[in-house]
Amino acid sequence: MNNIPLVFWLVPLASITALGMAWHFFRTMMRQDEGTDRMKDIAAHVRKGAMAYLKQQYKVVGIVFIVLALVFSFMAYVMKVQNPWVPFAFLTGGLFSGLAGFFGMKTATYASARTANAARKGLDSGLRIAFRSGAVMGLVVVGLGLLDIALWFLILNSYYGGQPTALVTITTTMLTFGMGASTQALFARVGGGIYTKAADVGADLVGKVEADIPEDDPRNPATIADNVGDNVGDVAGMGADLYESYCGSILSTAALGATAFALNGELQLKAVIAPMIIASVGIFLSLAGIYAVRTKEGAGTLQLLRSLGIGTNLSAALIAAATFVILYLLDMPGWLGLSFSVVTGLAAGVIIGQATEYFTSQSYKPTQSIAEASQTGSATVIIKGIGTGMISTMVPVVTICVAIMLSYLFANGFDLSMSAASISCGLYGIGIAAVGMLSTLGITLATDAYGPIADNAGGNAEMSGLGEDVRKRTDALDALGNTTAATGKGFAIGSAALTALALLASYIEEIKIAMIRAVEEGRTFLDATGSVFNPAEAGINDFMSFFQVTLINPKVLTGAFIGAMAAFLFCGLTMGAVGRAAGAMVDEVRRQFREIKGILEGKATPDYGRCVAISTRSAQREMILPSLLAIIIPVIVGVVLGVAGVLGLLTGGLAAGFTLAIFMSNAGGAWDNAKKYVEEGNYGGKGGACHKATVVGDTVGDPFKDTSGPSLNILIKLMSMVSIVMAGLTVACC
Amino acid sequence: MNNIPLVFWLVPLASITALGMAWHFFRTMMRQDEGTDRMKDIAAHVRKGAMAYLKQQYKVVGIVFIVLALVFSFMAYVMKVQNPWVPFAFLTGGLFSGLAGFFGMKTATYASARTANAARKGLDSGLRIAFRSGAVMGLVVVGLGLLDIALWFLILNSYYGGQPTALVTITTTMLTFGMGASTQALFARVGGGIYTKAADVGADLVGKVEADIPEDDPRNPATIADNVGDNVGDVAGMGADLYESYCGSILSTAALGATAFALNGELQLKAVIAPMIIASVGIFLSLAGIYAVRTKEGAGTLQLLRSLGIGTNLSAALIAAATFVILYLLDMPGWLGLSFSVVTGLAAGVIIGQATEYFTSQSYKPTQSIAEASQTGSATVIIKGIGTGMISTMVPVVTICVAIMLSYLFANGFDLSMSAASISCGLYGIGIAAVGMLSTLGITLATDAYGPIADNAGGNAEMSGLGEDVRKRTDALDALGNTTAATGKGFAIGSAALTALALLASYIEEIKIAMIRAVEEGRTFLDATGSVFNPAEAGINDFMSFFQVTLINPKVLTGAFIGAMAAFLFCGLTMGAVGRAAGAMVDEVRRQFREIKGILEGKATPDYGRCVAISTRSAQREMILPSLLAIIIPVIVGVVLGVAGVLGLLTGGLAAGFTLAIFMSNAGGAWDNAKKYVEEGNYGGKGGACHKATVVGDTVGDPFKDTSGPSLNILIKLMSMVSIVMAGLTVACC
Repeated sequence: MNNIPLVFWLVPLASITALGMAWHFFRTMMRQDEGTDRMKDIAAHVRKGAMAYLKQQYKVVGIVFIVLALVFSFMAYVMKVQNPWVPFAFLTGGLFSGLAGFFGMKTATYASARTANAARKGLDSGLRIAFRSGAVMGLVVVGLGLLDIALWFLILNSYYGGQPTALVTITTTMLTFGMGASTQALFARVGGGIYTKAADVGADLVGKVEADIPEDDPRNPATIADNVGDNVGDVAGMGADLYESYCGSILSTAALGATAFALNGELQLKAVIAPMIIASVGIFLSLAGIYAVRTKEGAGTLQLLRSLGIGTNLSAALIAAATFVILYLLDMPGWLGLSFSVVTGLAAGVIIGQATEYFTSQSYKPTQSIAEASQTGSATVIIKGIGTGMISTMVPVVTICVAIMLSYLFANGFDLSMSAASISCGLYGIGIAAVGMLSTLGITLATDAYGPIADNAGGNAEMSGLGEDVRKRTDALDALGNTTAATGKGFAIGSAALTALALLASYIEEIKIAMIRAVEEGRTFLDATGSVFNPAEAGINDFMSFFQVTLINPKVLTGAFIGAMAAFLFCGLTMGAVGRAAGAMVDEVRRQFREIKGILEGKATPDYGRCVAISTRSAQREMILPSLLAIIIPVIVGVVLGVAGVLGLLTGGLAAGFTLAIFMSNAGGAWDNAKKYVEEGNYGGKGGACHKATVVGDTVGDPFKDTSGPSLNILIKLMSMVSIVMAGLTVACC
Repeated sequence: MNNIPLVFWLVPLASITALGMAWHFFRTMMRQDEGTDRMKDIAAHVRKGAMAYLKQQYKVVGIVFIVLALVFSFMAYVMKVQNPWVPFAFLTGGLFSGLAGFFGMKTATYASARTANAARKGLDSGLRIAFRSGAVMGLVVVGLGLLDIALWFLILNSYYGGQPTALVTITTTMLTFGMGASTQALFARVGGGIYTKAADVGADLVGKVEADIPEDDPRNPATIADNVGDNVGDVAGMGADLYESYCGSILSTAALGATAFALNGELQLKAVIAPMIIASVGIFLSLAGIYAVRTKEGAGTLQLLRSLGIGTNLSAALIAAATFVILYLLDMPGWLGLSFSVVTGLAAGVIIGQATEYFTSQSYKPTQSIAEASQTGSATVIIKGIGTGMISTMVPVVTICVAIMLSYLFANGFDLSMSAASISCGLYGIGIAAVGMLSTLGITLATDAYGPIADNAGGNAEMSGLGEDVRKRTDALDALGNTTAATGKGFAIGSAALTALALLASYIEEIKIAMIRAVEEGRTFLDATGSVFNPAEAGINDFMSFFQVTLINPKVLTGAFIGAMAAFLFCGLTMGAVGRAAGAMVDEVRRQFREIKGILEGKATPDYGRCVAISTRSAQREMILPSLLAIIIPVIVGVVLGVAGVLGLLTGGLAAGFTLAIFMSNAGGAWDNAKKYVEEGNYGGKGGACHKATVVGDTVGDPFKDTSGPSLNILIKLMSMVSIVMAGLTVACC
């Protein structure tokens, strides 16, 4: 057993603190009054629908997990091409990711009526409840993430500790728990995304456009499904997504640390735990930020945004400062450079967030131009939105490129020699930059999860017939949520790009392990010149030569084509799914308006249940194919095209998927806010021809920003994780 | 001087035959009657507008060319990092590409009224004139292409011939003429695409949707601009585009042949001229196909399609057979494998064409589903169309991947060893597959260029008030043109993917030449271990190692991100340009309807000239930035990130750009035909709510399929060409 340094215990401590504070915020929220009977009743409806959906989804995902765990067990125990811990690590990753979504959603469904009720008193009370409830989600995600990491590290360390390559085995095994988290996250994002957008699109198209009734009007049969959708998609789906991003960045960096510093045991251990320590300190400092968020009555969107901004920026600044202290105290050689890598990641996150805000907020030109295009109809709104979304990819991509180069060079002391050691150190720097970017997750996720809670509070206020002023307050909270949500997606995709790069190196490491195992079993690998290739003594560059992973190898290029295509195909399938599900919803809502007399006059109650059932059924059926694609494609490419093909696949998928994700998320956010801009009274305001044109844009943007776009970051990492877990199979076949 | 084999003279002979036949078809067409005075008058208007635009465009492009030629001259004569022929080759490439577009457009503008007039007699007469006029364009493109290639080959051979590395120098110099063609093609595609879509979108949005008047109605002020646009975008733009594709594939394959077989002088010469010979024979066999196209009165779209299909398939089959004979007679070692590479390219073209037809023709499920989605409004039409377009990327990408692997393996005798020799032979196979795919261009381009001629004939018939039956015949011809146009775009992008791969190898070769020159001037290159690197003796793999072009190098990955982003940014800019220009057009048409009394009653003539001026101005202004991007990005990446970054850039741009291009072209084609499907009487037919919803889809699809999407294949190749031409600069800076 390795001697675990005292500082490691900060990790479980931070995890328990996060979970304890989450419990505290949850209890405080639960003590608030839920409002009138009507409010309670509506909240109960939404809660019931959300829980019913989640139960149904976990059943389907559970089957997938059992099948995959059996496959992994077969590979581990019968084929012996995998580590025996893999099936278990995989299952806990899925379980914890599911739990993070579950707790977040439970909190959100309890918080919405309470937020609406508090908003009757004033804006500050409303913000406080919504934001603290969002913080429950943020803290549960980071708390559960670090808990799972700490537990597995302790378990595996007590089992493997003391063996010469213990830390490499431990960290690569822990990556499979990342695969479990990614698999569950993809299902949650896709299923939740289809659910929420089918309901949202269906409700808007018939309600707002055809029947001319306001959003969340109780006369609309799809309105409960829409509110349920906000919870299962925007809360549970996002929670699982960011749980996956958070753990993925820490685990891949730890794995890189284990291989980069394999020759120096003490330093190696430090490199493995450093990302965990930074994340732990991030939790404490996020808590400080959470307490700093407060506002005054009568605050506008900008003031609210500033208030949230103070909290997140405070946390970010404190974490940047703390990183230098931590790495210095850890006495890591190159601590200064590594600290700058972390700061690079934090800064990149902030810049991407700012750029996202610029391209998606109605306070700026791009979104205003989309609204302006509504004067010439919905077609020009779509053309303009797509154009703007595509142009908006420039800043985030360039930022990530600069961050990659800088964090790489900071970490290896500006060494461009591309020796094995300098590459490993540099990649470790890229990984730790991703950890830096996500270290503020406790608070950034709070500002993110707060959006759907405010949205639902608005829905509750509308359906309960609360006064105009209450609705106005919840609207202010909701508008803000749109911007914070877009920023959160920027963080998720930005960190994914950095993490995915780190995972490329982990993939090579896993191939190395599999080859060493094969050699031990008597297999001989010959290189192009016919000499024997000894994987145990080969560095990362030697593997690149052995597998001929250059850009002139047609296998690499073929893989890159397939990777880019996979991103588009995945989006095409999920867009198609939302289209089909929304179509079914529209038919149902129209049918109810036609057949149930008196709905539109408010004299008859619509059949909310059937709409909930349609969303549930569509989401369950449609999430399977795109999610399985992410698992199957890397396996097929690995078997047919080998290691070179897989690396091409991951690179092509990363480059195209990253850009596509930003395009879709930003276009969707901009369309949404262009509509809000018109609703604020520009170009004829609510109900005019321009408004109708922007509603079309918003509707198209819904699956862009809440289904396809934000799933891509999970897709990218899941393809990497699957490749890593299947490395043994690839080696066996090639 | 190398001893030029007799068979080479087939190239100028084929070129002159093609140009002669083009002249013959042109004269035959000109002898037909142009119809009534009104018809002549309208045709003259369109012709004048088109020529005026082209003149204006050539002025702007001319300035760009002069500036670039001066830059190249400076690099060649002052910095001495470039071959002295480069500025001249560059200029002729641009000139010939422009000429191809000019002649094609001139023919098209003379042919439209004659086609309309012939359609008064019968469908067959109409088809014959439109198709033969399209053939003028097809033959001019291939004729001018081979003429330029043959001339430069003879000139450079008489200058360099006899030197040991003559053929390498000659073929890489000729690639710069490819860069000239690509530069001019990008401006033509982007400028023409913006022009035509601004007019089309503007005319449709106000005319069809708001004022409820039919397409091409003379009361619509934008209708002349729309018809001019079909000529400058779909004819002149497409001609320049395919001229670039055609020459690019032949030149890059010749360059690969020169390096792949550098050690065997006789074989090397054969490998250089083989792609030219295959292309020459393709011209004769395309002519055979052109004569086989005829139809009977009363034929429906499917019969017309079959008639065109017989022509193209006949040509393709003959060329496949002829390839075996040519390569056998050339006595090339491995002739059988190479012939199969050519057949692979031809087959891939056919499969991509079929898949394109399936995804974009209203005879099949995907497009019908988009029409079905119109029942729930325009938003679901857009969502469904985007989803379908994204899914449609699968077949072409997989086809190209299989074609890459097969043509590579056929050419090098299934050698996966990745030795320098096997890579070079394999890449030569990929290049010659692209030549195979484009060898039928004489006829495929005829079926492609015929579309806009038929479209314009319909416009002329409508504006001249010809009978219902004439319009029906031109409509049948036009509907067909939509499918053949989509197929043509499939060919262009498919061949671009193969050509771009071949250009990667040419880039390395050019880097090698630049490094050898630098060594001669006294510079020393040290590799990572500090040993001296001798470029003159290094193979392709050695350069990959020296520049560390592996997928673990952050420069490569950064380059790939920027490449993917460049494709999106380019589309975003061109989409935005169309949106802006169309908005201006809509405003103008609305203004005329409002201010010029009696337009809608047909009592006053609209001011067509102002609409033409708006399109011209917008296109000129907006084409500059996106086109220059393609030139500037590779230069910056080369200077900052070096060779590894450039190869990453080209790979990322290729993978993402290829997929994005198919997505955009197919989505656009499907939206267009979904509208046609509704117009055929489905879901309420013309004028109903569903029709309006599909018109929105069609409008969004316009810039997808005619501006952004089809420009991407040029963008990809131009970025490669610029990198090749700027290789000397990159070496000087790194």
